[in-house]
Amino acid sequence: MKIDINCDMGESFGAYSIGQDSAIMPYITSANIACGFHAGDPDVMKKTVSQALEHRVSIGAHPGLPDLQGFGRRNMVLSPEEVYSIVVYQIGALNAFVEIQGGRLCHVKPHGALYNMAAADEQLARAIASAVKDINSSLVLYGLAGSKLIEAGEKAGLPTASEVFADRTYTAKGMLTPRSLPGALIKCEETALSQVTRMVKENKVRSTDGTDVAIQADTVCIHGDGAHALAFARLIKETFEKEAIEVQPIAIGG
Amino acid sequence: MKIDINCDMGESFGAYSIGQDSAIMPYITSANIACGFHAGDPDVMKKTVSQALEHRVSIGAHPGLPDLQGFGRRNMVLSPEEVYSIVVYQIGALNAFVEIQGGRLCHVKPHGALYNMAAADEQLARAIASAVKDINSSLVLYGLAGSKLIEAGEKAGLPTASEVFADRTYTAKGMLTPRSLPGALIKCEETALSQVTRMVKENKVRSTDGTDVAIQADTVCIHGDGAHALAFARLIKETFEKEAIEVQPIAIGG
Amino acid sequence: MKIDINCDMGESFGAYSIGQDSAIMPYITSANIACGFHAGDPDVMKKTVSQALEHRVSIGAHPGLPDLQGFGRRNMVLSPEEVYSIVVYQIGALNAFVEIQGGRLCHVKPHGALYNMAAADEQLARAIASAVKDINSSLVLYGLAGSKLIEAGEKAGLPTASEVFADRTYTAKGMLTPRSLPGALIKCEETALSQVTRMVKENKVRSTDGTDVAIQADTVCIHGDGAHALAFARLIKETFEKEAIEVQPIAIGG
Amino acid sequence: MKIDINCDMGESFGAYSIGQDSAIMPYITSANIACGFHAGDPDVMKKTVSQALEHRVSIGAHPGLPDLQGFGRRNMVLSPEEVYSIVVYQIGALNAFVEIQGGRLCHVKPHGALYNMAAADEQLARAIASAVKDINSSLVLYGLAGSKLIEAGEKAGLPTASEVFADRTYTAKGMLTPRSLPGALIKCEETALSQVTRMVKENKVRSTDGTDVAIQADTVCIHGDGAHALAFARLIKETFEKEAIEVQPIAIGG
Repeated sequence: MKIDINCDMGESFGAYSIGQDSAIMPYITSANIACGFHAGDPDVMKKTVSQALEHRVSIGAHPGLPDLQGFGRRNMVLSPEEVYSIVVYQIGALNAFVEIQGGRLCHVKPHGALYNMAAADEQLARAIASAVKDINSSLVLYGLAGSKLIEAGEKAGLPTASEVFADRTYTAKGMLTPRSLPGALIKCEETALSQVTRMVKENKVRSTDGTDVAIQADTVCIHGDGAHALAFARLIKETFEKEAIEVQPIAIGG
Repeated sequence: MKIDINCDMGESFGAYSIGQDSAIMPYITSANIACGFHAGDPDVMKKTVSQALEHRVSIGAHPGLPDLQGFGRRNMVLSPEEVYSIVVYQIGALNAFVEIQGGRLCHVKPHGALYNMAAADEQLARAIASAVKDINSSLVLYGLAGSKLIEAGEKAGLPTASEVFADRTYTAKGMLTPRSLPGALIKCEETALSQVTRMVKENKVRSTDGTDVAIQADTVCIHGDGAHALAFARLIKETFEKEAIEVQPIAIGG
Repeated sequence: MKIDINCDMGESFGAYSIGQDSAIMPYITSANIACGFHAGDPDVMKKTVSQALEHRVSIGAHPGLPDLQGFGRRNMVLSPEEVYSIVVYQIGALNAFVEIQGGRLCHVKPHGALYNMAAADEQLARAIASAVKDINSSLVLYGLAGSKLIEAGEKAGLPTASEVFADRTYTAKGMLTPRSLPGALIKCEETALSQVTRMVKENKVRSTDGTDVAIQADTVCIHGDGAHALAFARLIKETFEKEAIEVQPIAIGG
Repeated sequence: MKIDINCDMGESFGAYSIGQDSAIMPYITSANIACGFHAGDPDVMKKTVSQALEHRVSIGAHPGLPDLQGFGRRNMVLSPEEVYSIVVYQIGALNAFVEIQGGRLCHVKPHGALYNMAAADEQLARAIASAVKDINSSLVLYGLAGSKLIEAGEKAGLPTASEVFADRTYTAKGMLTPRSLPGALIKCEETALSQVTRMVKENKVRSTDGTDVAIQADTVCIHGDGAHALAFARLIKETFEKEAIEVQPIAIGG
């Protein structure tokens, strides 16, 4: 039994600093690095890739919507063609920083609103999967477990990683409870840890209406900022180790 | 005897259109494609790469300063490290569009103020040469003939292409007469054509103070917009052919 | 009987030129000037205000979404608070250019996706109406005839101008036929002119299902770019004059 | 004897937070609020104006270069006309947020590279002074003591405020020692406090070559971020009070 722990990284921009990247690195196996659209800039990208290589963390591109002020979290109505192009652009840009430092790009995880829109919209999901595949068909596509994005990745023949969240509740359909609803977030650490452990071990999650739902858990997302980010990162890794779950990056071609 | 004809391409942005790319393509051998900083956007880049491939025109990245309003023509004081990063970023982004379409990136030519600053500033020139080399040491670095950028490219072991201008006058030191001075531009087509022909055939140019100056002419830059762009493109190509100068892209490793 | 003819102006940006502002100015009574978010830049704004003053055209702010690449035409999910702030910002910026040139800001018309979203979404409509009112309660709020934006303006006590389109068809509910549907655009000039004349004279429009719908027509929008923009601008003005409809800006406090 | 204490404020952007605005407010008399070019966004501007009004702090616009990544600290070669336009734009935008909240804009202080360039370049200094004057000739123009900007403000008939720095050393010509030189910064708090006290009381500063130089001190700039910002803000205010120097905003028309 195994799991990948991923975290968004490289979200600083110019004089603006977000996250505690170097402190979090030891507790994760995959870093999703911002590509300059919703966050990150060329200098930050270079440095973050270097940090990930130093910590032997698997590197992924984390493309987002062109909305720095909204941190890529505000939905924008882009055509599938536009989404395809911005994903190609951002992967290419990040990949250059990985290659000049002797690394290898391993995965792609869309950010924020792009991630959420692609979870529900088949056309956008396909556009992203095509972009990833056209660049490199061995890149692992990360997406919400059970989402259109994972489906599109599989149809495109890409390796995929189904992502789960420790601190979010799930509906009876296996989807995330929208943040706008009460009970969307799990604030108790113990509950979060036992939910994610069960998702990994049993591929099941107790939904908000009390039923068990099947869920695929290849990778768990942790947050890089906030007061408790570091403590929780350490805790979740320890929990997995205690439960004899191997924490390791998604094996490409594995 | 041979010469490359290059032209800046893909400078449109969103709803904004500049240039007459597809009309100019038949008359050039190398296209410098904007990478989204001073001009161009991901959709435009994709389309422009496609047009270049269709016309079998050699493709280069045309990185610029992050100044869309100024079209990359306003000097900005960036550190060599910042210049390195923005060049890596932009080459990577463009390269992705080239690769997904089955093409091959052949050269890099900095744009506008970045080109001019790198012509005179050794540190910036080195930063650009390093970025290009670190990405792919077989990429041809385009720069102003006799400039610090060509020097830096050579020192880095990169293939270089010394660029000349048909419609600009040269000082006794072989540098371009600054645009702010009278007589910087050659408005007479015949004079422009005979200047560029002589540069290619004799590696000489008559400077503004009447002396002949040695100049290396590997590639000549033509303009893609303006009323006479297309007519002049046709004319310069015909002139070269009449003079038995082969018009062909810079041979990589040649 | 009277009508205002408005047109979007000042949509150029840096080296990028759109529209034929100075040629269109003689045929309109109100100019909606872009404020630097979806189009326009500070230099363009200054120049466009100067042109409008010279032609004695009534000046309005034309705030848009922060999406230059999408020209403000791509929906973005902004909160009402965010919409309020970007509208205040843009009106303030444009107003400065009007005041330094001795003019007076007369109206506000949201652009593109912001206009469309505010036509249908009451909260966004209120946010815009509040922003306008808080800045200057005598500014005329332009919005789609029959829309939530006009309703919000009226509730806020603002003078409003109900906008109609000569070249768009209307549904039985008096709304614009979405552009995604066939028959959304009226391509025949005569039909367009007779539709808009009837809207002004009879406050009625023949909808796509053949019924007559009541519509308020205070101002008609014409387009500033495209091959036929200028010709149509002249034609619509002549048509109104022939029909004894006075072409004049919305009278503030009138 | 009196002095104004000013501080840059509202430099956060979207999800990015900089500074400790509300904590610093009690110790200053004037706030220079970023206007969205080098820092700040419409929501941040609205909130920062509100905080300043709440603390009865005098409000100024803090226009900068259009370079968010560089935080407006990288020199850019803009024409005087371009500088005029970006200053008008930014003052107008900020002023709108001040007016809707019932406040009054009192001063303008250019930011970072724009401030430094205008200190030395007469044409840029004049462009800024003209922009401020054209908008409102009672606005106080803040600039480096002894600089071209103060000179241009005086020539334009604007009220001016000569700014001094507690923690920077001065050359024998009364200019700031460039940051690139050793000894540019005063790291000892006591030295900084005694320097600024002397500047206010005696209009003199001991320069780096040991001579006394005359200096006008109307306002002192303190920094809003960094670990010791808050402590130093408190300290400098206490020091002035102990020395019987009145801490108060620049009196307009006073």
